[in-house]
Amino acid sequence: MIKNKIAPALVATVLLFSGRNPSFAALDIMPCPAEVRFPAPEARLPLDADFVVAVTGITDARLRSATNRLYHSLVTRTGIVFTAVAPGLPSLGTDVKKAGLLLDVRSPAPAIPTLDEDESYALVITDRQATLSAPTTTGALRGLQTFLQLVRQDAHGYYLPAVTIRDMPRFSWRGLMIDVSRRWQPLGEIKRVIDGMELVKLNVLHLHLTDDQGFRIESKTHPELHMLGSDGLFFTQDQMREIIAYAAERAIRVVPEFDLPGHATAWGVSHPELLSGPPSSTYAIEREWGIFDPAMDPANPAVYELLSDFFGEMAALFPDACVHVGGDENNGKQWNANSRIQKFITDNGLKDNRGLHAHFSIRLSEILARNNKVLLGWDEILHPDLPASAVVHSWRGPKGVAEAVSSGHRVILSHGYYIDLSEPASSHYLNDPIPPGSKLTPGQQKLVLGGEATMWSEWTSSETIDSRIWPRTAAIAERLWSPQAVRDVADMYRRLAIVSLRLDEAGMRHEKNRTSLLRRLAGDAFAPTGPELTALRTFSDACEPVKQYARGRLQLKSWFNPLGGFADATVPDSASARDFNNAVAALLTGDGQADRKAAIVGLRKQLQTWHDAAHIVATALAAQSPRLQDAGKMAEGFIKSIRIAEEALAALETGRSNPAGWKKQSIETVDAVTKPNAAAVDLPAVKGIMQLVEAAP
Amino acid sequence: MIKNKIAPALVATVLLFSGRNPSFAALDIMPCPAEVRFPAPEARLPLDADFVVAVTGITDARLRSATNRLYHSLVTRTGIVFTAVAPGLPSLGTDVKKAGLLLDVRSPAPAIPTLDEDESYALVITDRQATLSAPTTTGALRGLQTFLQLVRQDAHGYYLPAVTIRDMPRFSWRGLMIDVSRRWQPLGEIKRVIDGMELVKLNVLHLHLTDDQGFRIESKTHPELHMLGSDGLFFTQDQMREIIAYAAERAIRVVPEFDLPGHATAWGVSHPELLSGPPSSTYAIEREWGIFDPAMDPANPAVYELLSDFFGEMAALFPDACVHVGGDENNGKQWNANSRIQKFITDNGLKDNRGLHAHFSIRLSEILARNNKVLLGWDEILHPDLPASAVVHSWRGPKGVAEAVSSGHRVILSHGYYIDLSEPASSHYLNDPIPPGSKLTPGQQKLVLGGEATMWSEWTSSETIDSRIWPRTAAIAERLWSPQAVRDVADMYRRLAIVSLRLDEAGMRHEKNRTSLLRRLAGDAFAPTGPELTALRTFSDACEPVKQYARGRLQLKSWFNPLGGFADATVPDSASARDFNNAVAALLTGDGQADRKAAIVGLRKQLQTWHDAAHIVATALAAQSPRLQDAGKMAEGFIKSIRIAEEALAALETGRSNPAGWKKQSIETVDAVTKPNAAAVDLPAVKGIMQLVEAAP
Repeated sequence: MIKNKIAPALVATVLLFSGRNPSFAALDIMPCPAEVRFPAPEARLPLDADFVVAVTGITDARLRSATNRLYHSLVTRTGIVFTAVAPGLPSLGTDVKKAGLLLDVRSPAPAIPTLDEDESYALVITDRQATLSAPTTTGALRGLQTFLQLVRQDAHGYYLPAVTIRDMPRFSWRGLMIDVSRRWQPLGEIKRVIDGMELVKLNVLHLHLTDDQGFRIESKTHPELHMLGSDGLFFTQDQMREIIAYAAERAIRVVPEFDLPGHATAWGVSHPELLSGPPSSTYAIEREWGIFDPAMDPANPAVYELLSDFFGEMAALFPDACVHVGGDENNGKQWNANSRIQKFITDNGLKDNRGLHAHFSIRLSEILARNNKVLLGWDEILHPDLPASAVVHSWRGPKGVAEAVSSGHRVILSHGYYIDLSEPASSHYLNDPIPPGSKLTPGQQKLVLGGEATMWSEWTSSETIDSRIWPRTAAIAERLWSPQAVRDVADMYRRLAIVSLRLDEAGMRHEKNRTSLLRRLAGDAFAPTGPELTALRTFSDACEPVKQYARGRLQLKSWFNPLGGFADATVPDSASARDFNNAVAALLTGDGQADRKAAIVGLRKQLQTWHDAAHIVATALAAQSPRLQDAGKMAEGFIKSIRIAEEALAALETGRSNPAGWKKQSIETVDAVTKPNAAAVDLPAVKGIMQLVEAAP
Repeated sequence: MIKNKIAPALVATVLLFSGRNPSFAALDIMPCPAEVRFPAPEARLPLDADFVVAVTGITDARLRSATNRLYHSLVTRTGIVFTAVAPGLPSLGTDVKKAGLLLDVRSPAPAIPTLDEDESYALVITDRQATLSAPTTTGALRGLQTFLQLVRQDAHGYYLPAVTIRDMPRFSWRGLMIDVSRRWQPLGEIKRVIDGMELVKLNVLHLHLTDDQGFRIESKTHPELHMLGSDGLFFTQDQMREIIAYAAERAIRVVPEFDLPGHATAWGVSHPELLSGPPSSTYAIEREWGIFDPAMDPANPAVYELLSDFFGEMAALFPDACVHVGGDENNGKQWNANSRIQKFITDNGLKDNRGLHAHFSIRLSEILARNNKVLLGWDEILHPDLPASAVVHSWRGPKGVAEAVSSGHRVILSHGYYIDLSEPASSHYLNDPIPPGSKLTPGQQKLVLGGEATMWSEWTSSETIDSRIWPRTAAIAERLWSPQAVRDVADMYRRLAIVSLRLDEAGMRHEKNRTSLLRRLAGDAFAPTGPELTALRTFSDACEPVKQYARGRLQLKSWFNPLGGFADATVPDSASARDFNNAVAALLTGDGQADRKAAIVGLRKQLQTWHDAAHIVATALAAQSPRLQDAGKMAEGFIKSIRIAEEALAALETGRSNPAGWKKQSIETVDAVTKPNAAAVDLPAVKGIMQLVEAAP
């Protein structure tokens, strides 16, 4: 149940209530704005058929397009026929008095979005009119998303609360990286990702275009690169222009990554001579996941010739000022084994492989500079010789950030934002590029541009990418947009459930595809809306995919793993387990001791629901579906743990101890459920169950 | 619950059982093959990691691509990692002995599919191997879909039953028309439709590209046509080539329709002089639904000049031999009011508007003939002067078919296949182009090429098109493919539920988008998997959109109606209402009298389920959602009817009469629910309830 309640973080930090009805004042939006006031807490602006948008300031193509999308989203959400809108595609009105939303923008934004644009806006909603003012159309676009998220409903209709918002992002680089190399994601998926990004005010789409497993961009100067390196799965340049235009329309930058010198196998399929292996080595597209030996040969002049052509071509294709050249995880084996390369290091006084990498990065940055591009690369590019203009993308954490800014580099953070690792939203949410108490100087802090969620794709298919990105990435978007002090986890989860519905409305498939996947796993013996599917959903809601890199130790670690199994139908944030564990903690710490009885009843009810669901999974479903055998075994273990939890609750309630040996035996039984399993899922409620066992007399 | 049971129609007509376990022999596939034998009813061919496809006959690009799609579908369905398949995109093996599926094709099909291709195939599955043999790759493609649908599962794994199938279509034209003019459907939707068509062996995609509401194809010779006539929503020629290639890969033809001389408003936006209104008339894209006056001027030589250009261009773009020129529903008003046109009729001895239309059709057929194309048009093109080569597309029914074939025209039927009218699958299923007892001569029957489901789009958006097409169109596909005698409605519905899951797996969104729509209608106050959403689903499952043209009398009949309301979240075939009504009929006719008590218990249980769901819709949901007010009122009426049904059941059970006046009063109350309502839905269970009331003492 999604409740309207006050957001404590807001109360503490940025909300200034002036009314008497704070429950009305709750904000359900994400990311949370920088400053919010409710000058008339009871007032509302109705949203009805007369609603029309008008302009007093400038307009440009981007603002017109955004307004059209606003109408479309409002219609999708409300079903209202906006009769006041002119026939044909809706256009911006000029009748300022009658307008429900007035746009007052002072200047157009650049046609191609850039770093350090002014994205600020002010949104003032009274019971008669909403006014969105912004220095640029980009700020107006951000404000339109806020406007959309403010729409509420009751039986009488749709409306917006009267509110005064002044908003601007904390960080200017708020990115999402999609790895289309390991697992291909077609055009439609990328456009959908962009739609979701706009909703939560992310502004950089970083495409990881080349890696060992695929070369995913058409090259016209060297077509052999994508023809031989991609299995035919690549973006044509026309498609890429379509993506860039689609993103630009939403004020989102597109930053391409060509990962070098490591992660380079796919280049070697057509150009083995560019890599550092023994002469006459050949390379095939990599089908496994991991760190591989192939690396570009920085000692080979032909490498720079080809890269000059290639980056020249890409610089013309991608309008953004930044080009990401990767630079991560070169294991150095090919370089070590190659005497010519080692001689090159010595001859050029480069000391070691790190020096050689720096030499390579400098050469790349020169090529990019000739094309008016700035080099961006992962932590490993950092080296005293690296030009100060280079931007460091830190996947290794606070130490990496500190090192980079100490050397005067601008930096973006991805450590802690690896959404592929199935960590809960809370862990990403509390991961701050400049955490409270940071020791960085104000000057150094300015060099921290922001961060990027990284959607590495070893365990992500087109079918599951939405549930891996959304809704958790909305929490990262808030971290990067909202004030540092906005960090109340419970309120984040409350709002995340709401923004998840907005993302569903905007076309994301995190919910839709999950249900379809569960139907497929169950097979034909069960009706799509029958009790077995409901049980499977309930059980899958109690599970989470295993975290960090555990899945690669449990399941086939390759491109041939088709995914679409039970783990893929679970999501990293089990709300039912979180609520259960929180309730256990409250019970045991004595919070709300008055309601101890009700708390125990609530826990029992949840345990019974899980028990019934797990029982159906372990019996009826496992009896019909080869794909639910592993999940069925997990369900059996869960059932045992649930019985133990019930025994623990009984002991806690009555004060009567369980028999001797019960605790030891119970801990062993519950602990068995946490062991690595072929289903590759966790049952996070086991944490709460274990606490009950420990606490039971 | 989807049960495995014998398909009675099959037993009666085409199945030849040789084993003792007929339940194993049940076929779950659609369309039903022409001939099926089970030589070893217990035998099964396991589908496991060793499975590989090999060829003994010829291969071509289409067969290779189809085999890749087969692997992809099998992986999606089963999650099996086919380790025997070569790395990279799977390729056809040559190890005949080890192959799980052997393809034996004698000759390639034409690169562009044509009418009257040989689509036959034979599929022999033993416990050791499956062999698919076909005269052409097109037949093999059809057989691969049969193979896919035969895959079954139990706890031990996936397998195929041993079976011998000889199959060929009854009709060579098995089409689906999509109206992209009234409501735009982008490229992605069209490709998804093609995926679904392949699954049920449909072979003609008919695109209704121009109408009063939009001109949806890029013209390079006359770009003003699509630029001014489409609101920017049209297929580029590149996109159309992509659609045609995508369809051809699946042996599906693409037939374009340019509707003339009526339904021509969109042409008039850029070329008012081509239409028949008074001089200096202007035209705007039509936003309403209905029959409008604008019609091409057959007396104007400029019309034929432009159409010569345009059809020449389209003939080069669309490789199919047929071009559909519409011809329907010209109301003649512009022609009647134009003295120049009436003089043209007199001067040319054309008698009347029908003669003028024939003159126009003949001119069009001449233009098309110069481009090696055959003219295809709706019933109204039929005229003694029409060239015999023209194909008549009948939307008016058996009489139209008989007239057309009597005149020697080939004909396709769409009367009875109007899937936009929300009729149940059964009505389409029993609608036969050559029904049992047809009076057509064998020669005339040969002229009946087949039929087409028509997805007119007044009440269909991109979000709902899947649930309007699927799964019902699979029943039409079976009518057009399978033997005439296969017409058991109950078994059709049993298999339709299974093929619906296959369509979901293949990416159709009939289930996925429905759930999302219901979430949106409910609003933010309810958890996506909570009891309110379950209740809303149950209630929507008991409702059906109003049928035929009723919705246009209840809701805004225009392009501005955003759809996405409650009616759009219901589907035309309520399974729960069908089952309830069948159970009532069985109770009242005394079938299964022995189980009378159980039957009453079953009916009561369904009534209680509906009652509980309707109550939540009428109270909690209506209290929160402006978009469920009308549905809430329907739910209130349903609750009253349910109470009456319970009273009727009690009377039937005990034999004790209800009070005097009860029946009259009850009939009035129940009848009120059948009245037109703003929600634009029917409650088909009311039929069964009314029967209970009538029968109650």
